[in-house]
Amino acid sequence: MQNVPEEPNLTTATKPEQIIWTKRDLLDLENLSREEIELILDRAEDFVKDDPRHQEKRSDLKGIVVANLFFEPSTRTRTSFGLAAKRLSADTIDFTPSSSSLIKGESFIDTAKNIQAMGADVMVVRHAVPGAPHLLAEHLHCAIINAGDGAHEHPTQGLLDILTIRQRLGRVEGLTVGLVGDIAHSRVARSNIHGLLKLGAKVIVCGPPTLVPRSISRLGVEISYHLDDILPHCDVVNILRIQFERQRHGLFPSVHEYAMLFGMNGERLRRAKPDILLLAPGPINRGVEVTPEVADGPHSAILQQVTNGLAVRMAVLKLLCNRSESAQGAHG
Amino acid sequence: MQNVPEEPNLTTATKPEQIIWTKRDLLDLENLSREEIELILDRAEDFVKDDPRHQEKRSDLKGIVVANLFFEPSTRTRTSFGLAAKRLSADTIDFTPSSSSLIKGESFIDTAKNIQAMGADVMVVRHAVPGAPHLLAEHLHCAIINAGDGAHEHPTQGLLDILTIRQRLGRVEGLTVGLVGDIAHSRVARSNIHGLLKLGAKVIVCGPPTLVPRSISRLGVEISYHLDDILPHCDVVNILRIQFERQRHGLFPSVHEYAMLFGMNGERLRRAKPDILLLAPGPINRGVEVTPEVADGPHSAILQQVTNGLAVRMAVLKLLCNRSESAQGAHG
Amino acid sequence: MQNVPEEPNLTTATKPEQIIWTKRDLLDLENLSREEIELILDRAEDFVKDDPRHQEKRSDLKGIVVANLFFEPSTRTRTSFGLAAKRLSADTIDFTPSSSSLIKGESFIDTAKNIQAMGADVMVVRHAVPGAPHLLAEHLHCAIINAGDGAHEHPTQGLLDILTIRQRLGRVEGLTVGLVGDIAHSRVARSNIHGLLKLGAKVIVCGPPTLVPRSISRLGVEISYHLDDILPHCDVVNILRIQFERQRHGLFPSVHEYAMLFGMNGERLRRAKPDILLLAPGPINRGVEVTPEVADGPHSAILQQVTNGLAVRMAVLKLLCNRSESAQGAHG
Repeated sequence: MQNVPEEPNLTTATKPEQIIWTKRDLLDLENLSREEIELILDRAEDFVKDDPRHQEKRSDLKGIVVANLFFEPSTRTRTSFGLAAKRLSADTIDFTPSSSSLIKGESFIDTAKNIQAMGADVMVVRHAVPGAPHLLAEHLHCAIINAGDGAHEHPTQGLLDILTIRQRLGRVEGLTVGLVGDIAHSRVARSNIHGLLKLGAKVIVCGPPTLVPRSISRLGVEISYHLDDILPHCDVVNILRIQFERQRHGLFPSVHEYAMLFGMNGERLRRAKPDILLLAPGPINRGVEVTPEVADGPHSAILQQVTNGLAVRMAVLKLLCNRSESAQGAHG
Repeated sequence: MQNVPEEPNLTTATKPEQIIWTKRDLLDLENLSREEIELILDRAEDFVKDDPRHQEKRSDLKGIVVANLFFEPSTRTRTSFGLAAKRLSADTIDFTPSSSSLIKGESFIDTAKNIQAMGADVMVVRHAVPGAPHLLAEHLHCAIINAGDGAHEHPTQGLLDILTIRQRLGRVEGLTVGLVGDIAHSRVARSNIHGLLKLGAKVIVCGPPTLVPRSISRLGVEISYHLDDILPHCDVVNILRIQFERQRHGLFPSVHEYAMLFGMNGERLRRAKPDILLLAPGPINRGVEVTPEVADGPHSAILQQVTNGLAVRMAVLKLLCNRSESAQGAHG
Repeated sequence: MQNVPEEPNLTTATKPEQIIWTKRDLLDLENLSREEIELILDRAEDFVKDDPRHQEKRSDLKGIVVANLFFEPSTRTRTSFGLAAKRLSADTIDFTPSSSSLIKGESFIDTAKNIQAMGADVMVVRHAVPGAPHLLAEHLHCAIINAGDGAHEHPTQGLLDILTIRQRLGRVEGLTVGLVGDIAHSRVARSNIHGLLKLGAKVIVCGPPTLVPRSISRLGVEISYHLDDILPHCDVVNILRIQFERQRHGLFPSVHEYAMLFGMNGERLRRAKPDILLLAPGPINRGVEVTPEVADGPHSAILQQVTNGLAVRMAVLKLLCNRSESAQGAHG
């Protein structure tokens, strides 16, 4: 510790490993700093490079209990979080409301408190009501991860979209990203907007006027109702899913008209930038938001997004658990 | 081993670690001895003290297969057993009848025998029919744990209630415990009664006459129909859940009247002993059996019960599996 | 290592450990060689001998992700594969369509590709459509195991049946095996036929004419409509389940008549060879295909089949994963 030369004055942006994660929860991207978002992306990137078969299984979360509390149906997000926990050797609890105490009249918070009392260190929560994970964070002491709350946010989806952009295009800053579809009801849109703006991208939201509220411009995005107008300017288009299972009658004329005006197809792609990147948070309705040849084509990163989702969730789980370890150490 | 002084003549009650668990199954508390109950409680206490993050993950049950067979819906008990098994590094099978061969016409015993044939060492069984776990114990050679059989018993719930009493009040012997609610249909009541009486507590069951059968006095409990009469004498009140999901019409006049006569609220609490302990096996109907301020107040041990539930189940799993190991050793 | 005598010139049939598994998938028995089938059986036999409690837990598949994709309800096969994966220390994904993206309109292949993108190395697939696993094998790069595709094949069931025959009777070659029941709709029958014929058994299919298509004789089996005619000649009878849950009206007159003509009962058993072996892929309808005393009697191997099922699935998982490891090694 003697005669150590002075450290050069690096900004945190160039040395993200020096940033320390301090938040207990991951509730949204709106309240993360650019540095925090980049820290998660960097850590996720490490996991992407990891081929599990060529090394010892990771035991980062050995002894930790991760609980999935999904009050809405989900395959990919629930499975992705569950697998992320297992790959880090956590013990997992998978709570599904159909087999649950909710039918016995128990309150949402009581259910969560019970699972916490069983020893859950991290709770991954999906709920139809915006703010439900924030409410739990107020009442519980374990770490809460928002896995989608109504039309509010879905932060790990936003992070995996941004990670995919960074991997494919080398940067986020200065890019123009179009979010296309049902902006009004999309938590994916909101998490993308907050994350992308913090990292210096320009965001244009685009869809039928009934699905794009004017008020969203207050978040700092541009609004367009014509995909063909914005497409030539976009480096990335993130194609949101039309939620046919919760069909909102009257908000757009027909599936056919939607596909014609906002669907991504080969002809439209030819009018885009040559290296345009297409994202879709899935599951996609082939032939509606995107045609099969485009979904499976070279511009699409749909499956890379899924792979990145696992990595992002492993990174988030690890950051939240390491924080709680150091916090405990500080108290001890 | 030379010149060892003679061991003092201690009773097993003061040296519970010398008791050896010999039973293959945990079917009820009625047929356990006081020493066996205390052995489980002592072992569970060890697990409560365990903070998993500050030590190596336990591998007590590595290589053991624990199967959950729940023929009735359950969150907390099923999750608690599943997690208990995982925290001891067992492999787990989670059988739920909706996705099962039962819809193909297979018998209950055949289903269990099949899961045993897959290598299950321990089977955790919940069933609507009283005695179903005992029936399996007769037909199978693996260890059976009763996780609730109709209105008969729910031994691990009884054990976790008693453990919580012992932790909070320092003892069980000599205490007066009130069980309040639907005594007639409650397996929790029956396991509490057997366990508490064996450990030397006095038990009073209390509820509307339609829900408290006179015959229950044969178990050695007192009967009351007026909570306010017994409350001043109780050291503990265990508040049973009204099972609205299997509403028994005509057994009590109204939810409102029930809450007025038997609900635990702040006013009633002021007429109880100052250090009264309130238990509730959950999930609770807030505002019916207990008001929110009481459920979340200092007398309530509701969440401690959940934590103890995990510990009790870990202790039971370990005792049953160690027994089978030593039994095997004896044969080898 | 000097002066080692020359190795005797053994055929691969007597030294199966020298055969190397090269297939990526296990889609059917029709396209396996006799040597490949015997390799799986030999490896499975090793697992049967393994008592997990007397040794370290196996870590053969540590770091590997095994996904169950069951588009039809199943208890035993799904549980058996899941447990086989866990006993080899794989991480598992359990996908059930009810909680899935399928209700959001995603295609079958997209769902599977998503699970592959999460890192699944092996996908165990059950689907009502014959050929569905083969379709996935064309589109995915992970290993696919067919866990039953419509009325086509169920290869691990065929393998466990054959393993049980080999264990109980010491050989397969030269035996006469009767398959009794609904041959037309049975994937179990088809996998048995292919496997048994390759290993040199004679196969007779037997059932009501409406349930035994004449065309099946092209596979190389004999056809009979009278169990009592063939029974005296059979070394093994494999009793297929009547699928009451997908009742095919008009294909046989009544359950009672079926039981009389094709049910295995004590009286019929007395007219069989004295050491006849009875198999049933389960779940059985007691009193229909087989009477309880026969199902639980000394000739029945029903539960041994279940135990062998776990061993066969562990063997298949290990062979497929080792292949992919060596394949990777070759590329690296």
